[in-house]
Amino acid sequence: MPRFVLTLQCPDRPGIVHGVAEALLGAEANILENDQFREVVSGAFCMRTRFETPLVDADAVRVHLDAVAARFGARLTVRAEAARTRTLIMVSKFDHCLSDVLYRWRADELPIDIPLVVSNHFDCQELVARHGIPFVHLPITPATKVAQEARLSELVDQHQIDLIVLARYMQILSPDLCDRFSERVINIHHSFLPGFKGAKPYHQAFERGVKIIGATAHYVTSDLDEGPIIEQDVFRVNHAYEAEDLAIVGRDVERQVLARAVKLHAEDRLIRIGNRVVVFD
Amino acid sequence: MPRFVLTLQCPDRPGIVHGVAEALLGAEANILENDQFREVVSGAFCMRTRFETPLVDADAVRVHLDAVAARFGARLTVRAEAARTRTLIMVSKFDHCLSDVLYRWRADELPIDIPLVVSNHFDCQELVARHGIPFVHLPITPATKVAQEARLSELVDQHQIDLIVLARYMQILSPDLCDRFSERVINIHHSFLPGFKGAKPYHQAFERGVKIIGATAHYVTSDLDEGPIIEQDVFRVNHAYEAEDLAIVGRDVERQVLARAVKLHAEDRLIRIGNRVVVFD
Amino acid sequence: MPRFVLTLQCPDRPGIVHGVAEALLGAEANILENDQFREVVSGAFCMRTRFETPLVDADAVRVHLDAVAARFGARLTVRAEAARTRTLIMVSKFDHCLSDVLYRWRADELPIDIPLVVSNHFDCQELVARHGIPFVHLPITPATKVAQEARLSELVDQHQIDLIVLARYMQILSPDLCDRFSERVINIHHSFLPGFKGAKPYHQAFERGVKIIGATAHYVTSDLDEGPIIEQDVFRVNHAYEAEDLAIVGRDVERQVLARAVKLHAEDRLIRIGNRVVVFD
Amino acid sequence: MPRFVLTLQCPDRPGIVHGVAEALLGAEANILENDQFREVVSGAFCMRTRFETPLVDADAVRVHLDAVAARFGARLTVRAEAARTRTLIMVSKFDHCLSDVLYRWRADELPIDIPLVVSNHFDCQELVARHGIPFVHLPITPATKVAQEARLSELVDQHQIDLIVLARYMQILSPDLCDRFSERVINIHHSFLPGFKGAKPYHQAFERGVKIIGATAHYVTSDLDEGPIIEQDVFRVNHAYEAEDLAIVGRDVERQVLARAVKLHAEDRLIRIGNRVVVFD
Repeated sequence: MPRFVLTLQCPDRPGIVHGVAEALLGAEANILENDQFREVVSGAFCMRTRFETPLVDADAVRVHLDAVAARFGARLTVRAEAARTRTLIMVSKFDHCLSDVLYRWRADELPIDIPLVVSNHFDCQELVARHGIPFVHLPITPATKVAQEARLSELVDQHQIDLIVLARYMQILSPDLCDRFSERVINIHHSFLPGFKGAKPYHQAFERGVKIIGATAHYVTSDLDEGPIIEQDVFRVNHAYEAEDLAIVGRDVERQVLARAVKLHAEDRLIRIGNRVVVFD
Repeated sequence: MPRFVLTLQCPDRPGIVHGVAEALLGAEANILENDQFREVVSGAFCMRTRFETPLVDADAVRVHLDAVAARFGARLTVRAEAARTRTLIMVSKFDHCLSDVLYRWRADELPIDIPLVVSNHFDCQELVARHGIPFVHLPITPATKVAQEARLSELVDQHQIDLIVLARYMQILSPDLCDRFSERVINIHHSFLPGFKGAKPYHQAFERGVKIIGATAHYVTSDLDEGPIIEQDVFRVNHAYEAEDLAIVGRDVERQVLARAVKLHAEDRLIRIGNRVVVFD
Repeated sequence: MPRFVLTLQCPDRPGIVHGVAEALLGAEANILENDQFREVVSGAFCMRTRFETPLVDADAVRVHLDAVAARFGARLTVRAEAARTRTLIMVSKFDHCLSDVLYRWRADELPIDIPLVVSNHFDCQELVARHGIPFVHLPITPATKVAQEARLSELVDQHQIDLIVLARYMQILSPDLCDRFSERVINIHHSFLPGFKGAKPYHQAFERGVKIIGATAHYVTSDLDEGPIIEQDVFRVNHAYEAEDLAIVGRDVERQVLARAVKLHAEDRLIRIGNRVVVFD
Repeated sequence: MPRFVLTLQCPDRPGIVHGVAEALLGAEANILENDQFREVVSGAFCMRTRFETPLVDADAVRVHLDAVAARFGARLTVRAEAARTRTLIMVSKFDHCLSDVLYRWRADELPIDIPLVVSNHFDCQELVARHGIPFVHLPITPATKVAQEARLSELVDQHQIDLIVLARYMQILSPDLCDRFSERVINIHHSFLPGFKGAKPYHQAFERGVKIIGATAHYVTSDLDEGPIIEQDVFRVNHAYEAEDLAIVGRDVERQVLARAVKLHAEDRLIRIGNRVVVFD
């Protein structure tokens, strides 16, 4: 039987679970996984349900769910589990995150398609080509930034992109672009946020003499390095690590954290409530 | 409004979530947390739901749920969240786990009551007394084991004990006792199971030259060191750690793992399926 | 044979290890452990050597080492391993760090003596008394701060204190005191520095939606929360943790990080170079 | 100035550090790093020293050190830091460890040369070719095992191989080969040894319901899965991970653990004492 994933988000009140469960029964669905969360501060309720049903596609499922979503004023998404998240990757010169995402994509660890990779440099062109993926070179200068982002938007539309991954793309997106692709752009920051925001976090970490370094995957917002955190991880270091050594071990943390964030997003396991991300894992 | 926690376990089939949600609506309940799991191998389904309702006690809630439990052949538990798990702690000579549980109990980190502590030695008597908890000395020899366990069973009945915690109690419970208190006895084993079963695991770890040591909390079964694992954690060590050093850092892991396991059990977050434990956290 | 620990710190140049090894040979010493580090940025060299020799005390050992220390312009310390670090603990109301240090002290995990505990509140008085340690109440207000610190200094002198441990002492030491006791005051900060400096770090962590929290032990300097970091550790959390939950799991991290820092200091394993701490472990 | 690394291993007695330091002074060397360890059980002493000297090569350095090595009956190695460890990689069908080692090799994270990759299958041929490294197909059956290993030995000699890395090479080396290449073969085992020895460790881990899985890099000996452990690491999992999921997250642990072990070996940071490995990091 085909499998689907729904997410639903609305103000909490009694009856939501019952309403959704009833609608799913009407769709002859069997629930496989079900996670819910109710945030105390805002009273926001969210849920993710994975289920199987004989219905043929997400639209057919949605027919059964629209009424209950309307009743609770809920934001609803329904996706066939087999539908892969169409992912555009952006990269500058460092290739470790890109390389890792491509490896996992080929190994079928990530339920994504990668219609194209965009870069402001040529360093990663060969790596991308070797994987049979189109590489688009979009150089950027202060003068061309508006045009470059316009071109990027076109590519996103043209390729029906669901998710943009900044795999160490060392450029700051304009507020307009951030707003347009809200909750659809994931960045990997090479520090354990909120520590060491901004440039050269490994040098900052060396100066501060920290004993543990980390990386942070977050949704991009117009507020640099302040977007909602999706995933973080750390690695223990010591006094003998110079900034360059920190950068090397940091790469391992970066690629793993980014890969996990992409997987969580692609499986509809992330729901943003304010500046925090609910992770249903 | 009073809060309650239900757990439910039965073979999977469509309609369970809907049935439970409907019963809870009937009880004017609002669901606060809801976790479900369906095990692929056995087809077993289990759920844990935390909810608030104006009903006065667990029995009143149960009235609304018995029918749906019967319909799905489910094992159902309902508990008022305010009801504390009555916990008997057993200990021999080492006091680090006991001391930690007592600290957390006093700091209100664990939703348990501790009506008594039982030991086959006197080493921990003063520590227990200082906390105003009755200490019962039940010495044990091969000859007196049957009588000692009979006395233990009496104490369990008399004090209406829900959970027995073996906080480094260096005795093996008889198969009879294990069966009688199935899923109600938690042991802390001082190794990362299944590595280093049996006696002196830190010495075994030293001999083997492992780089990481750990501890394991598990439900006790008649199959020694093979009970279903609840929680594990680890600590990195190196070649300079002798067996005694491993034991010292191991204590930290032991007490934390045990404390987490007790908390999970006391919050009804653990459901055993075969030899594995579903942890709803 | 008696065992000793020396530490030595000086600008790097060839011959230091040879010079120290020769002096130790002259003292009929056998080296048990030896660690060295040379910092690239400053060219600072430091070493820690643990050795056994028939000599009777640290002064007798020093006689053999003073010449080589002078030759290299080195700061030298020599300590009999059996000599315990005299430690004054300061605490406010939270008792989890104090409680943990006291437990480890009694369990002989920490090579320290605790001649007294000082607090600006009475909350921990009973806990301290139970361990047979004098408790000194030194309340503090903006008006009495100078006098309170003067009294503290007297106590430090009178009890020949080697180390002051701020075990969640919620007061800021004056710059004078920080300078006077430079590298002799360890604080535990309840965040993963440099993230969440200042007050209420767990509330800050909740607001920011981090997925991992931590704690940091550091030497106290007049620059608040910027002192050289000794040790850090972290704990994974998720969206369901409210600020209070973060504080509870944070306690576990705090006490472990503080205990490790105290142990490292008491074993002469810490050497400060600029704003970073070399940890010989 | 050229840099070198020496390792030395002998029974402990006074004067070794002094003797080595004196010999290095004679070689006009400045010590950059120095680590020592003395094992309590066996009384074995070992050290690793990294230093710079104007001497031209390792042979010239050795001239200064042979006498002191002879005096203490020590096993001595001297290597120019710039000399890369010649590494032969063996692989079967899984490419994640191979892929990772190749990535790190190209990114210059590992101080190794890879003259060839050997496999009993063709699955990884293209990956290897893409990196410009010769791929040698050496199929193996029970009947051809002796001949295959003879051919492997020839390749090792012909290419002056220092280190063989079994990057998920699913074959067991014969005792003869293990002896011949003692301490020169590193294997990655996909479990946290000594748990889950033998075949299908992820399936074993699933059956046992462990909450943490791991990987272990060890030197290969004729005693399968019992060789001295170099490095281990772990990853937290839960009840929802099926065996295949464990295998996927396990890959991440495997490749990191293997990469660290190879780096440690290639930097002469590993000294085997009995069945344990001293790691100077």
